[in-house]
Amino acid sequence: MSSTQIDSQVTVQTTEQSAGFFNVLNSRRSVRKYESNVVISEEEIREILEIATKAPSSSNMQPWRFLIVTDPELKQKLQPIAFNQQQVAEASAIVIVLADLEMYSLSDKIYGASVEAGYMTQEVADNFIANSTKMYSGLPAERLKEIVVFDTGLVAMQIMLTARAKGYDSVPMGGYNRDQVKEMFNISDRYLPTLMLPIGKAAVEGHPTTRLSLDDITFFNKF
Amino acid sequence: MSSTQIDSQVTVQTTEQSAGFFNVLNSRRSVRKYESNVVISEEEIREILEIATKAPSSSNMQPWRFLIVTDPELKQKLQPIAFNQQQVAEASAIVIVLADLEMYSLSDKIYGASVEAGYMTQEVADNFIANSTKMYSGLPAERLKEIVVFDTGLVAMQIMLTARAKGYDSVPMGGYNRDQVKEMFNISDRYLPTLMLPIGKAAVEGHPTTRLSLDDITFFNKF
Repeated sequence: MSSTQIDSQVTVQTTEQSAGFFNVLNSRRSVRKYESNVVISEEEIREILEIATKAPSSSNMQPWRFLIVTDPELKQKLQPIAFNQQQVAEASAIVIVLADLEMYSLSDKIYGASVEAGYMTQEVADNFIANSTKMYSGLPAERLKEIVVFDTGLVAMQIMLTARAKGYDSVPMGGYNRDQVKEMFNISDRYLPTLMLPIGKAAVEGHPTTRLSLDDITFFNKF
Repeated sequence: MSSTQIDSQVTVQTTEQSAGFFNVLNSRRSVRKYESNVVISEEEIREILEIATKAPSSSNMQPWRFLIVTDPELKQKLQPIAFNQQQVAEASAIVIVLADLEMYSLSDKIYGASVEAGYMTQEVADNFIANSTKMYSGLPAERLKEIVVFDTGLVAMQIMLTARAKGYDSVPMGGYNRDQVKEMFNISDRYLPTLMLPIGKAAVEGHPTTRLSLDDITFFNKF
């Protein structure tokens, strides 16, 4: 192990650093009432997404796409599509997370960037591009969907946490009409909306919830 | 807005606190070589899961189950099932994340705990239990699977980050034979293995990777 590695681990392990992390994680709650006059700039939304998209994904395919709704009229239009939940109109930005079922079609960009960064040769990249395209395009549709849906879960969690670290709150919503969202924004069947995520400044705190006991959900060395 | 809420937001917004969070997030990389002599105690694994399971989920159904493999012989047996990737034998603990396709059958425990905590009356809880059981058990199988797979993505991200905050590394693996895992541990079709996640002390740092430009994946107010 090089000294660089030891240093970086020690840095993370310091109490202050982890305390900051745990504070962000523990302070995240689903918030349903927002200060509707608060604007989050496009720049700040991009900052949040830039950080959150450091999430890992299957073969680094990054199947997540983000449709961000900040226009007040469009937010109003979304509300009936989201079973009239008011946070959709009142939060500053609604991030609709989409899973790209043809994410492998961007593999040339993904591995091209790695070549540019000096992380791999063009030859290695070409192999990765050919192999990942062949593998993912050849998967049964249901299996491919599982992979991209799971990966949008990873990035969605990082969006919620990053927003919290920047003083915002959010509420993950699965309850909305996905077909109507696709229709409203002319989204093709290539993309599957997974999460609708309002982000903004809390007007009323989220309420606490409970969790199952670990004994109900963890199994050591046998199931 | 009450003063309590303002206080809690200000705490999170302080630079030190967010710096700790961002440091954890940015220092997480997929690590494939581990110090094979390092033991993570069952207690510490439970601590990590206790924190990570603060993740949100659809109707708070918490469809995640964790099979944790720490037994050296079992880890050896897992390696061929995971296409011989050595991290499966060398990391301290392998967390196999399972999605419970009948997660609603635990709704009495979930809402029962909320009653006990004083968050809702028994009457409200009974309604939630009846409604969530009816809704989720009535969903088409494919839709239900999307929901539970997505939710295991949320918790998996928090496991990776929490492990990092505690000085460990991990590597999310989708490439393994799920049927063989189910067979090895006698796991019924009620459970769908999503992620295999080795956790341990890095012996060699993870290599840096690139991400798509935000311009390729973000869409503001139109798609």
